[in-house]
Amino acid sequence: MSEFAITRRQGLLQMAAAGGITLLKPRLLRAAAPFGGDLGGVRAAIEKQQPEAIKRLQDWIGLPSIAAENRNMNEGCQMMIDLLKEAGFQSATKMPTDGQPGVFATLDAGAKKTIGMYFMYDVKQFDPAEWSSPPLEGRIVDRPGMGKVLIGRGATNQKGPEATFLAALHALKAAGRKPPVNIMLIAEGEEEIGSPHFGQIVRTPQVLAALKKCDVVFMPANGQSPQGDVTINLGAKGLIEVELTCNDEKWGRGAKNDIHSSNKARLDSAVWHLIKALNSLVSEDGNDPAIDGWFDRVKPLTDRQKQIIADTVAATKEEDVKKAMGVQHWVRDLDYRASLERLNSQPTVNIEGIIGGYTGPGGKTVLPSKASAKLDFRLVPDMTAQDAGDKLKAHLAKHGFGDIEVNITGGYDPTQTDEKSSLITATKAVLNDEKVPFNLNPRQAGSWPGYIFTGAPVSLPAGHFGLGHGNGAHAPNEYFLIESSNPAVRGMAGATLGYVEFLYALADMG
Amino acid sequence: MSEFAITRRQGLLQMAAAGGITLLKPRLLRAAAPFGGDLGGVRAAIEKQQPEAIKRLQDWIGLPSIAAENRNMNEGCQMMIDLLKEAGFQSATKMPTDGQPGVFATLDAGAKKTIGMYFMYDVKQFDPAEWSSPPLEGRIVDRPGMGKVLIGRGATNQKGPEATFLAALHALKAAGRKPPVNIMLIAEGEEEIGSPHFGQIVRTPQVLAALKKCDVVFMPANGQSPQGDVTINLGAKGLIEVELTCNDEKWGRGAKNDIHSSNKARLDSAVWHLIKALNSLVSEDGNDPAIDGWFDRVKPLTDRQKQIIADTVAATKEEDVKKAMGVQHWVRDLDYRASLERLNSQPTVNIEGIIGGYTGPGGKTVLPSKASAKLDFRLVPDMTAQDAGDKLKAHLAKHGFGDIEVNITGGYDPTQTDEKSSLITATKAVLNDEKVPFNLNPRQAGSWPGYIFTGAPVSLPAGHFGLGHGNGAHAPNEYFLIESSNPAVRGMAGATLGYVEFLYALADMG
Repeated sequence: MSEFAITRRQGLLQMAAAGGITLLKPRLLRAAAPFGGDLGGVRAAIEKQQPEAIKRLQDWIGLPSIAAENRNMNEGCQMMIDLLKEAGFQSATKMPTDGQPGVFATLDAGAKKTIGMYFMYDVKQFDPAEWSSPPLEGRIVDRPGMGKVLIGRGATNQKGPEATFLAALHALKAAGRKPPVNIMLIAEGEEEIGSPHFGQIVRTPQVLAALKKCDVVFMPANGQSPQGDVTINLGAKGLIEVELTCNDEKWGRGAKNDIHSSNKARLDSAVWHLIKALNSLVSEDGNDPAIDGWFDRVKPLTDRQKQIIADTVAATKEEDVKKAMGVQHWVRDLDYRASLERLNSQPTVNIEGIIGGYTGPGGKTVLPSKASAKLDFRLVPDMTAQDAGDKLKAHLAKHGFGDIEVNITGGYDPTQTDEKSSLITATKAVLNDEKVPFNLNPRQAGSWPGYIFTGAPVSLPAGHFGLGHGNGAHAPNEYFLIESSNPAVRGMAGATLGYVEFLYALADMG
Repeated sequence: MSEFAITRRQGLLQMAAAGGITLLKPRLLRAAAPFGGDLGGVRAAIEKQQPEAIKRLQDWIGLPSIAAENRNMNEGCQMMIDLLKEAGFQSATKMPTDGQPGVFATLDAGAKKTIGMYFMYDVKQFDPAEWSSPPLEGRIVDRPGMGKVLIGRGATNQKGPEATFLAALHALKAAGRKPPVNIMLIAEGEEEIGSPHFGQIVRTPQVLAALKKCDVVFMPANGQSPQGDVTINLGAKGLIEVELTCNDEKWGRGAKNDIHSSNKARLDSAVWHLIKALNSLVSEDGNDPAIDGWFDRVKPLTDRQKQIIADTVAATKEEDVKKAMGVQHWVRDLDYRASLERLNSQPTVNIEGIIGGYTGPGGKTVLPSKASAKLDFRLVPDMTAQDAGDKLKAHLAKHGFGDIEVNITGGYDPTQTDEKSSLITATKAVLNDEKVPFNLNPRQAGSWPGYIFTGAPVSLPAGHFGLGHGNGAHAPNEYFLIESSNPAVRGMAGATLGYVEFLYALADMG
């Protein structure tokens, strides 16, 4: 569910036009100064190693780990370990959980400073029939107006950026350089199912002790839009994913198996019961949560957050955003600013999917005995995943739906990182040095398990960093830009260099 | 959708206990008298021809015609024609329609009287994976406590009883007898999709002219319950089948394709819109229609209809019915009598199936751009399919759901036949003569296109007749009883004899 790329606002923000953003000193040049003009051979090493970096990514894409299908989990965990060790991590250990295993790895560069990193080795499910080229091949194809892209499941979410970060470590080594920071890295294999056991890894004494030495945690991501600009998210909504099921057998009403539909006159229906339960969760237009107590902990946007949104609105063409999304109207025909305030601040109740009864060709006069829906609920500060799940169950019970099975399959708390933290400051430094336009965003509407780092007991700034571009996370034909035809957007080599620059910026943050 | 067997009430009614039913004179003995003790060799011919009658049914089952899948329609129509001609119909003609073709056939026996018959040659969809023996093989297996049954799609709905009727004609011929009545027969291939074009066949001048000579129309059916009793339905509910689809592209809201679920905060949802529309169609508990004007034409049960239901209740063990159906409670915890009154008198809104968004393993954080539901609406006198469809569309438009596509895939008006008609009188005569216990039912809750015969301009009594037993229409392992181990329930040969008896009873009705 790391949805950095998907949820990015599509509009191009001209940094110069944004206003209110202080141009930082070009720290990176200082940091890179000891290397000489080509960053001490790092740039040349990246170019030289590009074929093997691509091959490494293709091999990784060829082994999809999918927790929802329990597919290649141990194999994927081992590959993650191997990839980290090859990139220079002295230790990389499998971390068992009650679910799928993760990895804890450390790279001691003898540096003063240690940073934390978060990886995921799992990918989203896929249906090869929907893809224009095989999802496990990582084929490189021309994409008009963009350049050469690599197509594959995980290309942008998240193997592409992660492999690019590893390529940066390989290039530093080839150039005879140690990384400017020590790295402690935690990887998990359940990100796409809501990271249900990631906390178990983070809360082991050895990982907590390692995190105590860090002042920042980040995840590599393809941060550039198709136009080249970057959105810096200062937080992310939380999430619970829930499956609601009405089953006549448990309910004790209707018939225990599907029965002829003529019996509807005298029997209750599992599908109607589920629909009535769902109906109770939202407002009349389906756009606001109506769950008892749902807004008790919801914090309104601050003036600063509203200002950041206003800056974005001023610098963005609404019509471009709508066109890119295939959208004609925001909910309730809101204007763009109001729609962005909702996107940043409103908890949501979304139906990911619903199924019950006969769904084949034609009709079938059946009264179904079972129906279920998958939902996701986005959470904002100060809601928590635990409290949201409890409130949902209490609401259903109170309104006559206590029989409905509530299966909470995963959840994240919301996460927030200070605009003045070293993570954001270093990010801005690199983007300014490289003249990459960027805008701030108070909170991304998508979710990632950053709260495990930003919340107690770790309490560190946490977020994403990366140049480069990709798109199609969770969708067919997910891609990662390898060779860019647009000088404003970095290909894989440029993104690799970006990670080198970012490590030096972090080292320089004091 | 001929649901004679499925919707039969399971309770055994002791005819003697029923009260209010006049024992008719044993007319059949008079009719059969010319034959002598074994009905003039007909009984012996039936026994002798049994293997080929079974083979004929198996071959028919081996060619499934499924209109919903446009499968074997012309082939099935031709087979219907061949089967009728082999059974003695002098003419059997393919009748084209705007949909799938039907058949019009006549058998002139030189008799004084002509009866109308209705056949269907199509069957319901099936999934072989759900069957214990191949659905197209017609394998004969032992069924404990019942006897030998033939398993196959169409075994009871409706090829089994229809092939049994044809076996009766073959047996009469083998015994050197002409049928005691002339027969005009209409068959269709779209019964399972709601007979959308059957009216086109009936309303051709040649068919209308032929129907003018008839005083009754009937369809063969396996009329006996597992205990041997027969329910005589004096009518049937009507039906419309409808698919409702919400599609963002047509709606002009949401996004035109599935999009990341984090956008729910600012975008409308096709699934929520469909759920809100569905929610508006029924009462809070999902059990009563709430469509504007839906009850305007609903006629309450007559005192006689209520009396028939009371008789049934008195003669039936409610617990047996509930057990057979897998049911613990009727809607609103009604008592059995009230539940049967609802079954006979209430229009229904049933969801056959619903689907939208991601329904695979695990979750997928998607905001779906499309969702649809299949519904069936049972109708009672004096509702009509046309008016119901119009009211549904008007209701949706009025309540803000005018964008939702309403695809009415089929429909029947309700049908009602007079208890004193020759059809019912002849039926009672055969059952009394054969000492088969029976009960009356004001109206079956399932539907069949009888209204085409009972309504103008044909206006004839129409219903089902048949001894024998089968079950599992529309379900896996549909079966037809071939050899009964219970003397109270007829196997195929006994059912064949029943049709001979019925033809003589009809001839005798004057």
